[in-house]
Amino acid sequence: MKRLSGREVADEITKDLKVRIDALKDKGIEPKLAILRIGEREDDLAYERGVLKLFETTGTTVDVKVLDEKVSQEELDKTFDGLNNDSGIHGILVLRPLPKGLSDEHMRNTIDSGKDVDFMDVRNVGEVLSGVPDCSAPCTAEAVMALIKHYKIETKGKRVTVVGRSLVIGKPVALLLTSANATVTVCHTKTLNVAEECKRADIIVACCGVAKIVSERYVRPDQIIIDVGMNVDENGKLCGDVDYEKVSPIVEAITPVPGGVGSITTAILLKHVVINAERQA
Amino acid sequence: MKRLSGREVADEITKDLKVRIDALKDKGIEPKLAILRIGEREDDLAYERGVLKLFETTGTTVDVKVLDEKVSQEELDKTFDGLNNDSGIHGILVLRPLPKGLSDEHMRNTIDSGKDVDFMDVRNVGEVLSGVPDCSAPCTAEAVMALIKHYKIETKGKRVTVVGRSLVIGKPVALLLTSANATVTVCHTKTLNVAEECKRADIIVACCGVAKIVSERYVRPDQIIIDVGMNVDENGKLCGDVDYEKVSPIVEAITPVPGGVGSITTAILLKHVVINAERQA
Repeated sequence: MKRLSGREVADEITKDLKVRIDALKDKGIEPKLAILRIGEREDDLAYERGVLKLFETTGTTVDVKVLDEKVSQEELDKTFDGLNNDSGIHGILVLRPLPKGLSDEHMRNTIDSGKDVDFMDVRNVGEVLSGVPDCSAPCTAEAVMALIKHYKIETKGKRVTVVGRSLVIGKPVALLLTSANATVTVCHTKTLNVAEECKRADIIVACCGVAKIVSERYVRPDQIIIDVGMNVDENGKLCGDVDYEKVSPIVEAITPVPGGVGSITTAILLKHVVINAERQA
Repeated sequence: MKRLSGREVADEITKDLKVRIDALKDKGIEPKLAILRIGEREDDLAYERGVLKLFETTGTTVDVKVLDEKVSQEELDKTFDGLNNDSGIHGILVLRPLPKGLSDEHMRNTIDSGKDVDFMDVRNVGEVLSGVPDCSAPCTAEAVMALIKHYKIETKGKRVTVVGRSLVIGKPVALLLTSANATVTVCHTKTLNVAEECKRADIIVACCGVAKIVSERYVRPDQIIIDVGMNVDENGKLCGDVDYEKVSPIVEAITPVPGGVGSITTAILLKHVVINAERQA
């Protein structure tokens, strides 16, 4: 079994970005990300820590704006106005899901599309569907594709089963893989036999947010397993959507959690901030 | 074998639209579609004839604008300007594919998104991906869903194989079916064994534009076959992507060509024009 390290991919991406960040600074431009966090959810804080750590090593500024989880829609809109109009900010990352009572759709339509580094905006989403060459996808979906590219995993003519149909990862990654010539099946809570759909795949992308649901019953030898999940198990330990302990001895290759897709996601986020800053230059 | 008549579905849709068109006329609004045709391709002309015929029966005006196939990008842009700015026009249908040398992407970004009745615009496309409730999809994709609704075909938990990955039909119909709780697999030219992927499905949606490619080898009893193809066979006769003669005796239900999905597509186009006219009212 080969362990597909996400850190290795992230390092490669970051190395290139460091050069570009230095070039920007030579021109007097300081790339800057604003994180908008509402409340104190543990997984939001974990993601935030990861971002702060990586961005710091590359000399990129992060402004964290924290709002109370009881914030009104009006107050949130005002915050967005401020961030949208601040020309020193090149990207806005909103930690999601938003607390109940705040509309995700409204938020996606409020954020300045030029600062939408996680590509939540409907126009950006359309580009993924349209297969616009080199378009930017939501960070996690793009992270999966970066992993595939880095490890030279063949997708052409391969069967891929995607477990999960979210707008952030399941649907866009299915479209990107279809464009990459894979034959893609998307499973979800209403799929009758997810194990069977997984077993016949050459590559499984697990992204449904259910801890360790992809068990030894779902896999067979020669498969490549990409685990996008980020959950907390019964012992309070970080784990993926795949039962790593039971699945890894069977398959050909697998990404760990942590140290897998999540690490790449943060590097892709940095890439999107740098691209926006370069556009301004 | 049950023959799934598209005309029956189209009649049902049109009946409701006639009432709405009359109500618009009472308010002094005449719904009007502009068709933009470049050149004299036979399939364009066939589609155009179908639209003219249906729209006439409902008292809806169609202006056909014909440009020479050697038209320049500049001239085409000017034509779009005219159509976009004419407040008497509620929808613009561009017959595609465009002749070589004219950019489809440029065209999609030039058309007024409020008059884009085939939902080619990247923003509209994004709504389909995002699963915006009651969003409008490209006419053919929406026609397939209307057929499924009319004949009360169960999609929840069913396996659907879509043959074709175009932006006009394959990808949007796959997303709509995923939202309708089906487990969807998208096949295309790089899929290794399309026949096998088809055989394991409960529902096949054939939309690859290859005459009669779905043969008796692709199907089994109890399946429902939805044929979106519109091709000309070796004898110059209209045919679908499914070999109707050989497939129909085997399966549970099938749409014919002509008289299947195509008929519904024209009715959906009319619906989009009426919706736009109602918005203006």
